[in-house]
Amino acid sequence: MNTIEMTGHAPKHFEWEAEGGVATITLTGAERKNPLTFDSYAELRDTFRELAHAGDIKAVVLTGAEENFCSGGDVRDIIGPLTEMDMGGLLRFTRMTGELVKAMRGCPQPVISAIDGVCVGAGAAIATASDIRLGTPRAKVAFLFTRVGLAGCDMGCCAMLPRIVGQGRASELLFTGRTMEAEEAERWGFFNRLVEPEELLGEARELARNLASGPNFAHGMTKTMLNQEWNMSLETAIEAEAQAQAICMQTKDFERAYRAFIEKRRPEFEGD
Amino acid sequence: MNTIEMTGHAPKHFEWEAEGGVATITLTGAERKNPLTFDSYAELRDTFRELAHAGDIKAVVLTGAEENFCSGGDVRDIIGPLTEMDMGGLLRFTRMTGELVKAMRGCPQPVISAIDGVCVGAGAAIATASDIRLGTPRAKVAFLFTRVGLAGCDMGCCAMLPRIVGQGRASELLFTGRTMEAEEAERWGFFNRLVEPEELLGEARELARNLASGPNFAHGMTKTMLNQEWNMSLETAIEAEAQAQAICMQTKDFERAYRAFIEKRRPEFEGD
Amino acid sequence: MNTIEMTGHAPKHFEWEAEGGVATITLTGAERKNPLTFDSYAELRDTFRELAHAGDIKAVVLTGAEENFCSGGDVRDIIGPLTEMDMGGLLRFTRMTGELVKAMRGCPQPVISAIDGVCVGAGAAIATASDIRLGTPRAKVAFLFTRVGLAGCDMGCCAMLPRIVGQGRASELLFTGRTMEAEEAERWGFFNRLVEPEELLGEARELARNLASGPNFAHGMTKTMLNQEWNMSLETAIEAEAQAQAICMQTKDFERAYRAFIEKRRPEFEGD
Repeated sequence: MNTIEMTGHAPKHFEWEAEGGVATITLTGAERKNPLTFDSYAELRDTFRELAHAGDIKAVVLTGAEENFCSGGDVRDIIGPLTEMDMGGLLRFTRMTGELVKAMRGCPQPVISAIDGVCVGAGAAIATASDIRLGTPRAKVAFLFTRVGLAGCDMGCCAMLPRIVGQGRASELLFTGRTMEAEEAERWGFFNRLVEPEELLGEARELARNLASGPNFAHGMTKTMLNQEWNMSLETAIEAEAQAQAICMQTKDFERAYRAFIEKRRPEFEGD
Repeated sequence: MNTIEMTGHAPKHFEWEAEGGVATITLTGAERKNPLTFDSYAELRDTFRELAHAGDIKAVVLTGAEENFCSGGDVRDIIGPLTEMDMGGLLRFTRMTGELVKAMRGCPQPVISAIDGVCVGAGAAIATASDIRLGTPRAKVAFLFTRVGLAGCDMGCCAMLPRIVGQGRASELLFTGRTMEAEEAERWGFFNRLVEPEELLGEARELARNLASGPNFAHGMTKTMLNQEWNMSLETAIEAEAQAQAICMQTKDFERAYRAFIEKRRPEFEGD
Repeated sequence: MNTIEMTGHAPKHFEWEAEGGVATITLTGAERKNPLTFDSYAELRDTFRELAHAGDIKAVVLTGAEENFCSGGDVRDIIGPLTEMDMGGLLRFTRMTGELVKAMRGCPQPVISAIDGVCVGAGAAIATASDIRLGTPRAKVAFLFTRVGLAGCDMGCCAMLPRIVGQGRASELLFTGRTMEAEEAERWGFFNRLVEPEELLGEARELARNLASGPNFAHGMTKTMLNQEWNMSLETAIEAEAQAQAICMQTKDFERAYRAFIEKRRPEFEGD
């Protein structure tokens, strides 16, 4: 199977920068705190789907322009039209948003969200779907679907959020739509850590570069298995991991690590 | 399907107050710290089952009389008789207690437990089955089944508690039966927050009133999906949410929220 | 079904002490921080399998010699040979390590890990597979499979660790292989508590003795159900617990506890 190149990817509805195997996706539209639109949803979904085949991108940083992460589905551009759609159209929309989450979970690259300022609605959902989340002390996360008359079960949030912060805390956040403050979010395990706004993107990219240095085949397997074992029995999961890790033991990166250890140097992984 | 009215519900074995869509259930028997009896178990089960059909109750507060939440199954009234039952009788009892938990999870209303003082045994189990838990600094929670020679797997606790506080902490609490102090319980995500005893019921009702103000159809869907997605695969959960949210997008409350936003006022939800 | 006696168990590749129903397994090889070898893996697996039939061992403490817990699979003794194995041999190895975890989860005795110093790789995995973990302030835990070119999905870690510390924190630890410091580990629910190094083994044994004092049949059922309910639906789990607890209600230990309560004394459990 051939891979594709995405370093030069040129999306229309968000910014894309790629360097040294790390792609940075920046949600745009700062005057409205980087809302998602029908177009940006679709293009994000397509981009993450393509990433499954990219040979040159090893880790992804997801962030927002100018001091905010994402204000979610734009009220005028998305919510207005939705109130007039029939069920066929509504399902096409909710499935598209779900497909974005599936694509984020389905690509082998670790996805690191770098979150400053507003992170609400569908913005909170894509943060939740990321593998690792860095926040700033002023980040505010809210699953505010309930504020627009909707349920907390949007884009997989009723499945993912309880696994990240616990069932009780997730229930409160999803029922009330209240803001989770940055300090709470770190204490509860939503944010992996807090960093100052001016250091946020740098820290996220530094972490992404570390992961991009490999072992990439193994990282992809880790991500696959975190997804696959979501609802396996413990016995089944243990056998599944025995198989998955045996596959990784046949990579050259495993041998490279062993030789580096014997020769007392850092391993250089190549992804095969 | 018609709904029923429960504002005037008049149970015999616990107190019931309902006002403005919020029902408060108060466990009674303060001299023995509000134990559960065969009768109160059955009546609680029946009440929560009826709530699935109630048109006038939108949120439930569950609390206990006079500075305690609940001391669990009464030792003389319940444990004594159980030691003399045959397997048929025992299963009828354990299934009845399980049916209470199923009914608490099965009703569409968010259930908020307001927990002061003693919260042990089956009392801890019904707290665990609630959606949101407020505690006081002097609340003491113990899954003390092991102290009466029984296992921690009672009324769903081995399924629910690990999802709320984590598998390691739940294992310790269920094996040892030790008391979880209020500060621990908040830190671990069992209590959503701690409030002073004199403010406990007021805060729980305030939160219940906020949830009762809607959107109620959506809240019911959030609760359904939190239950349904318990052991779904992530992919399956995302499609399930796409369907569930599309249903919610056809409610008038969704449109009401949109219009309120456009008109720069708070939405008034009506539950349809 | 007859039980076997294991107080006099005499393994070759780790230390075994048993007294008063509590067995202490001490991983050895202090000069290399107690690495696992092909032999010790197999013997640990066999020992935990036998424990399922032991009538005289009621709780297990798992610890390491001389200020460290375990450095994982030995690089020269295990990783070297693995780099030269074919897939059949690799699968036999990864399945053996998985079988150790299955055996730790499958025995009815609560397993308490007492963790000082280094706890990495497969050492971190067997700590994770334990029921309860005590640590010291200087304990360092790392799932460093990624450092040797492998994936985080080893011995069930992608299934177990997210349930213990949350999906977000587990993802970071498994992708990066970074050290989880003791204070973090306690805050995140990996360690049940921290104790000073000189008190570690004593505290772990004290806890084990308390659990060994019973009710042992019930403790075994708690452990079985924590495993069984791993991926059950909530409804199914509640019925499964109704059956499991009804079984426990027919033990004599349940009656012993009731009589002790009536007679205002501590119950003495006998395990039947």
